[in-house]
Amino acid sequence: MFVHTQDLQFEAKPEAPDAEYANRLQEVLGGKWGEMTVAMQYLYQGWNCRLPGKYKDLLLSTGTEELAHVEMLCTMIARLLESAPLSAQEAAQQDNPMLAAVFGGSNPQHSIVNGGGGYPYDSNGVPWSAAFITSSGNLLADFHLNATAEMQGRLQVARLYNMTDDRGVKDLLKFLLARDHLHQMQWLAAVEELESDGLGGIPVPEAFPVEEQHQEYANKVIKFSDGNAIGEGRWASGQAADGRTRFELADRPEAHGERPVLPPGDPRLYGTPPQTATTGAHSTV
Amino acid sequence: MFVHTQDLQFEAKPEAPDAEYANRLQEVLGGKWGEMTVAMQYLYQGWNCRLPGKYKDLLLSTGTEELAHVEMLCTMIARLLESAPLSAQEAAQQDNPMLAAVFGGSNPQHSIVNGGGGYPYDSNGVPWSAAFITSSGNLLADFHLNATAEMQGRLQVARLYNMTDDRGVKDLLKFLLARDHLHQMQWLAAVEELESDGLGGIPVPEAFPVEEQHQEYANKVIKFSDGNAIGEGRWASGQAADGRTRFELADRPEAHGERPVLPPGDPRLYGTPPQTATTGAHSTV
Amino acid sequence: MFVHTQDLQFEAKPEAPDAEYANRLQEVLGGKWGEMTVAMQYLYQGWNCRLPGKYKDLLLSTGTEELAHVEMLCTMIARLLESAPLSAQEAAQQDNPMLAAVFGGSNPQHSIVNGGGGYPYDSNGVPWSAAFITSSGNLLADFHLNATAEMQGRLQVARLYNMTDDRGVKDLLKFLLARDHLHQMQWLAAVEELESDGLGGIPVPEAFPVEEQHQEYANKVIKFSDGNAIGEGRWASGQAADGRTRFELADRPEAHGERPVLPPGDPRLYGTPPQTATTGAHSTV
Amino acid sequence: MFVHTQDLQFEAKPEAPDAEYANRLQEVLGGKWGEMTVAMQYLYQGWNCRLPGKYKDLLLSTGTEELAHVEMLCTMIARLLESAPLSAQEAAQQDNPMLAAVFGGSNPQHSIVNGGGGYPYDSNGVPWSAAFITSSGNLLADFHLNATAEMQGRLQVARLYNMTDDRGVKDLLKFLLARDHLHQMQWLAAVEELESDGLGGIPVPEAFPVEEQHQEYANKVIKFSDGNAIGEGRWASGQAADGRTRFELADRPEAHGERPVLPPGDPRLYGTPPQTATTGAHSTV
Amino acid sequence: MFVHTQDLQFEAKPEAPDAEYANRLQEVLGGKWGEMTVAMQYLYQGWNCRLPGKYKDLLLSTGTEELAHVEMLCTMIARLLESAPLSAQEAAQQDNPMLAAVFGGSNPQHSIVNGGGGYPYDSNGVPWSAAFITSSGNLLADFHLNATAEMQGRLQVARLYNMTDDRGVKDLLKFLLARDHLHQMQWLAAVEELESDGLGGIPVPEAFPVEEQHQEYANKVIKFSDGNAIGEGRWASGQAADGRTRFELADRPEAHGERPVLPPGDPRLYGTPPQTATTGAHSTV
Amino acid sequence: MFVHTQDLQFEAKPEAPDAEYANRLQEVLGGKWGEMTVAMQYLYQGWNCRLPGKYKDLLLSTGTEELAHVEMLCTMIARLLESAPLSAQEAAQQDNPMLAAVFGGSNPQHSIVNGGGGYPYDSNGVPWSAAFITSSGNLLADFHLNATAEMQGRLQVARLYNMTDDRGVKDLLKFLLARDHLHQMQWLAAVEELESDGLGGIPVPEAFPVEEQHQEYANKVIKFSDGNAIGEGRWASGQAADGRTRFELADRPEAHGERPVLPPGDPRLYGTPPQTATTGAHSTV
Repeated sequence: MFVHTQDLQFEAKPEAPDAEYANRLQEVLGGKWGEMTVAMQYLYQGWNCRLPGKYKDLLLSTGTEELAHVEMLCTMIARLLESAPLSAQEAAQQDNPMLAAVFGGSNPQHSIVNGGGGYPYDSNGVPWSAAFITSSGNLLADFHLNATAEMQGRLQVARLYNMTDDRGVKDLLKFLLARDHLHQMQWLAAVEELESDGLGGIPVPEAFPVEEQHQEYANKVIKFSDGNAIGEGRWASGQAADGRTRFELADRPEAHGERPVLPPGDPRLYGTPPQTATTGAHSTV
Repeated sequence: MFVHTQDLQFEAKPEAPDAEYANRLQEVLGGKWGEMTVAMQYLYQGWNCRLPGKYKDLLLSTGTEELAHVEMLCTMIARLLESAPLSAQEAAQQDNPMLAAVFGGSNPQHSIVNGGGGYPYDSNGVPWSAAFITSSGNLLADFHLNATAEMQGRLQVARLYNMTDDRGVKDLLKFLLARDHLHQMQWLAAVEELESDGLGGIPVPEAFPVEEQHQEYANKVIKFSDGNAIGEGRWASGQAADGRTRFELADRPEAHGERPVLPPGDPRLYGTPPQTATTGAHSTV
Repeated sequence: MFVHTQDLQFEAKPEAPDAEYANRLQEVLGGKWGEMTVAMQYLYQGWNCRLPGKYKDLLLSTGTEELAHVEMLCTMIARLLESAPLSAQEAAQQDNPMLAAVFGGSNPQHSIVNGGGGYPYDSNGVPWSAAFITSSGNLLADFHLNATAEMQGRLQVARLYNMTDDRGVKDLLKFLLARDHLHQMQWLAAVEELESDGLGGIPVPEAFPVEEQHQEYANKVIKFSDGNAIGEGRWASGQAADGRTRFELADRPEAHGERPVLPPGDPRLYGTPPQTATTGAHSTV
Repeated sequence: MFVHTQDLQFEAKPEAPDAEYANRLQEVLGGKWGEMTVAMQYLYQGWNCRLPGKYKDLLLSTGTEELAHVEMLCTMIARLLESAPLSAQEAAQQDNPMLAAVFGGSNPQHSIVNGGGGYPYDSNGVPWSAAFITSSGNLLADFHLNATAEMQGRLQVARLYNMTDDRGVKDLLKFLLARDHLHQMQWLAAVEELESDGLGGIPVPEAFPVEEQHQEYANKVIKFSDGNAIGEGRWASGQAADGRTRFELADRPEAHGERPVLPPGDPRLYGTPPQTATTGAHSTV
Repeated sequence: MFVHTQDLQFEAKPEAPDAEYANRLQEVLGGKWGEMTVAMQYLYQGWNCRLPGKYKDLLLSTGTEELAHVEMLCTMIARLLESAPLSAQEAAQQDNPMLAAVFGGSNPQHSIVNGGGGYPYDSNGVPWSAAFITSSGNLLADFHLNATAEMQGRLQVARLYNMTDDRGVKDLLKFLLARDHLHQMQWLAAVEELESDGLGGIPVPEAFPVEEQHQEYANKVIKFSDGNAIGEGRWASGQAADGRTRFELADRPEAHGERPVLPPGDPRLYGTPPQTATTGAHSTV
Repeated sequence: MFVHTQDLQFEAKPEAPDAEYANRLQEVLGGKWGEMTVAMQYLYQGWNCRLPGKYKDLLLSTGTEELAHVEMLCTMIARLLESAPLSAQEAAQQDNPMLAAVFGGSNPQHSIVNGGGGYPYDSNGVPWSAAFITSSGNLLADFHLNATAEMQGRLQVARLYNMTDDRGVKDLLKFLLARDHLHQMQWLAAVEELESDGLGGIPVPEAFPVEEQHQEYANKVIKFSDGNAIGEGRWASGQAADGRTRFELADRPEAHGERPVLPPGDPRLYGTPPQTATTGAHSTV
């Protein structure tokens, strides 16, 4: 259950409107690696977590914080959309040479559909999809994914930081950069904690008995492309992170299976080759 | 440029058809974390990689291998779809009590649309989407993501392994489990290599000057949910992975921004409150 | 069954081409609340309507009219796309300062994919989805939705009216504004008619016996956010539209359920915490 | 900014697991009219609301409550997924004749992807999309939509109530039915309040001057389908809800526009008819 | 502009309800190659057609007919959904052994969302998308596509014919098979007519001057896969359909381009390799 | 199984960067008819092909070639994205008047998400979907579709050729135009070969016994729209391509089915008309 306070976690006021940048900000609100994704991903992982205690608490706490980030970005976007020109004619009338670029790069739905507000869509106007989140039930896999999500997210915020000079916008981004930094640290710490608690290790899922897999295929990096430098990395020899695998490099792929020949299909499905039609071919039973 | 050989990388023959399991296998072929995703993700990362050498070679090599996994899964699915009953009537006629369950859980498009073949869709019949892949240009972020993708993928294969007794299917899964194990190791090794080459570190992007971000918000895990165990983990105190952050726990969220009041919008967009209609309100200029 | 006449329901000729505005018009053709949505929504509601007579007739009649609106918008868009510059170079060559804005805001698929024609996509180039329509089988719910669809649709047309000076375009929009006005009235009248015919009332579905629901939770608006003005509206006290509920305001949320603790999952799914692996853990039976 | 408490708003414990029903419940969690939709719709409307005070407070408060409903449904689904058979073989082994039906109707991603947890997807496994929400900036249009959303949502909950005998599930549904009942009342009251505050009326948007639209087309319901009963409803004559329109019925559609003839397109787009190729046809400038 | 008559083009009454088959029929209503696709594809091609006369008339006429097919399928589905069991319990209670299979394979949205009606979704419950239609402006390309659409569509109807014994259903399918047969003929005839009218030929677009393309690459089928039988077909030698190309077989792929080395990207995007941070790296200008 | 060589099939170097054109090129990389589609469509058709030999070999060979086209386009896009302005301010600073148009038309995800790389999305930033490919199991239907795909694809490339003056870009397009020309020829030749091998003919599926369909409806093109020129084409009289059908033109549509009246639905689904609530109406059994 949630309670909401209307005060923002951090200030979200631009110096001036900028409809084009408002659209760019949509990426970190409603894009694949935006705040909607981390908010929903952490909350669903928390709700589904079958292990009560610190991990569940961390997930629910961080997911709840991310909702506040969603709120700040939506607020910032609504403010950046003030006074946007409604047409190319209007954009061309004003004296600022930049306005044509801004108009061309703005999002028509911001005015036609939303009347000047933000929404959970990416910077190309594609709606956020729940397919962006994962809650696998395996915390080690999910904490790695969460760290990854913070990396991709912070990377995008850092890029957006270089795309504006507005000090108000930059101020909010500085806050988000700091929180994403912390969250990267936090999920990596959670990975360590899980491993030291004996609740999962590399490879994921550790609980699957490795002797069941075909171990003879579990240590060779195979050269499927003709770039020779592949042999120069840590993955080509030496010890792997699971503490048992010793990397090798295989110079060429080998086929361990034969050329498949599929049996003819059911003639009632009319695949090629067609079977000679039988009287039964067009009735079910 | 690619060259194809029709021999399979590993054998893909089930002992017997099973249309329901054929549908389950779609998840690791065309689902979010399936083989289509890793194949395309690694190839696009490789093609876009602006740093020639070992990393680019590893990406293109592994992406090419994953295409062979796509091929094996599609072949396996086509074989599992042999002799599938075409209707509930047909399923009910036969003597096997399991057939109703199999029929109910099978994918109608497998017969109506594909005529008995696999396709890049997930186990609920939702098409694979390119939104599943990421190629950010930042290799550290992407290698972490690649390791994550192998974790989620191997987890799903391990679960599927427990959902069948067919030795032919299990044989292929044992191969995939081994390769996914190796690929987890490989991407983690690539992360280490990047860091030791000085090409990127934690946080991502390391090149962004941390003194630009609001550092005062970069070390406190904040308790937004009322689970007290959040204070028991490594993320609540001590040193973080970036070697500079010392974790703290903040017991309650604080609002650093004020309650937002948005300015009235453009009256020509007819938001509420409506402005008193002016004669100009319904023409552009 | 339908019959088509090529004459348009209303004229659809712009004064001049405008590729950027052509893209904006896509919103009311193929966007969530565009003409495709209302056409298909009313027709499917009509075809599925299990009550013969005036309601079914109204649905099928209005749905058929909306197809004519789809046709007019597609025609208008095709005309607005005449003479569009094919490249930034071409746009920059001409003497009109507005052309850069127009070019930047135009839809590349209009020329690359459609060769200068309209299509059922929104103003960001996202395809129309059948998920936009609802046909629930409950006419009261659906007539309310239909009225809503006309409100959102007319709102967008009114905004688009303020984004152009082209008299031909405005002429078509004036027609659509009038029809959307009428259709708002019509669906609200149909709501009244249903209620006076005793075929459904508030709440929807009225046929569900309210004594079955937990009545003690059916009258309190609860303050989950800290905005105090919530107590000033009609929803905070007095009589509700169902004629039986008396509104109350609850000052704070209460938890009526306990903190959930989920049981450990099936170890064969490798959730955390992992169970100690048993020999049976990796085979189905 | 939000704060979370782990206690649930209402109890969410089934008497027994039921993987098939777990999938059905997904509809009201992640389907078009499920709790994700109303939570996000109300919050975005609240954040974008440019009118401070009671309406904004109501939106943010109700949106926050709906997050608690999302949480309860996810918890209920996770519990219903306990002990689900992992394969048709397993389902067939047990003694309960219903298990084949349950297995056939269960969602394979619940086990393969989520490891026994809920997610924001509908009952066919299609991910929730942000296209399901609307925040138009016009409160009258949006409050009507919100009332509609509660109607469609409560209708689905009422149907689901008739699809199970589990008293724990029914108990949660009784709570949701009551809250959806209240929320229908609440949004209808908000519509009234807006109108009595003079902030918007019928038609939406009222601020658009009706004399600008083609008034001669604003009162005739036109018979486009051959069902004669269309003339029997309130929409065929008498006064409409806007207090100024008097309905009429037009017996047959009339074309007010001519048969469109589109000009030939740009030959460089290779539409039919092709122009005779000129030397300039294949270069831009 | 359209006019609707409620009589159906052909009868659509099943002998008995069958909720599972109702779901299968969705494929040819709302699937990629279903009636929604051909209806919308032909209508949009007709509306966008810049060549008045017989081709435009054929498109608009056939598109209008397909709307009648949409209507019949929706009606048939609504009838097949009568008396469907609402739960596994209910399905198990009855005496018919087939009911578990039917229940498992039925579509939960048919009852929860639609209340027993059809909708434009495929047989896995994925909504119809406007991305399924193409209107390119080049009639030759589009008529080939239309013939193709009828082939895929008729193939699916023929398969569905073999999945039921219901004489009422089969009767409707026999009608659709006949119309799809005719429509295949019709579009192939339209291809011929276009060519004999000199309005387009092979290759598409014929108007593009072939001497502009790299002709030396326009006749060799290249062996990229190791199946030797590729040399046995008509494509390996002899004359092609354009009357000028003579096929050859190239035994192995050749690279005509070099190994790409991409320049380092903009350091402000934080790709790898990171540039040494300059003071300017984090501001726009 | 595939092997990759890093040399490109053809050169992919532009003369100069052009971020707007980079976005346009996305259409033929990741759009519906782009290289991703043909690559995946041919490979899946090849893997699912149940007829070993020349057809399967051709499919796998051509699909493998198309992967090389994907690679070249991605490389070209990455190069066109060099030096793109990161903001409207930056675009406006420079001296080139075209830059505003280029900036407005560029894809924000190219920099924010990809850091200057290509991805399998269309020119409006919508992700490639596996729904774009079809592998029906019927080779005649699929070869017609493949020919169609090459037509639509080549048409788009030809249009793009007219949208740039960059000789490097044009050089790559000339290569693609030539290959698409060849592939059109090749699939048409494969159609002929199939027919001459007796493996399938018109109509598709030929194996369905035409006497089963309602033959009386298989030869009349029906005039559903009022364009009289429909009677002037080859489809209105004479012999059809199947060698047995003689076309006729029917001047007006006829209804062969009656006006449908659907039975009342299950009262537990709360459709309109509501049934009088019975005590059993709200429990399953």
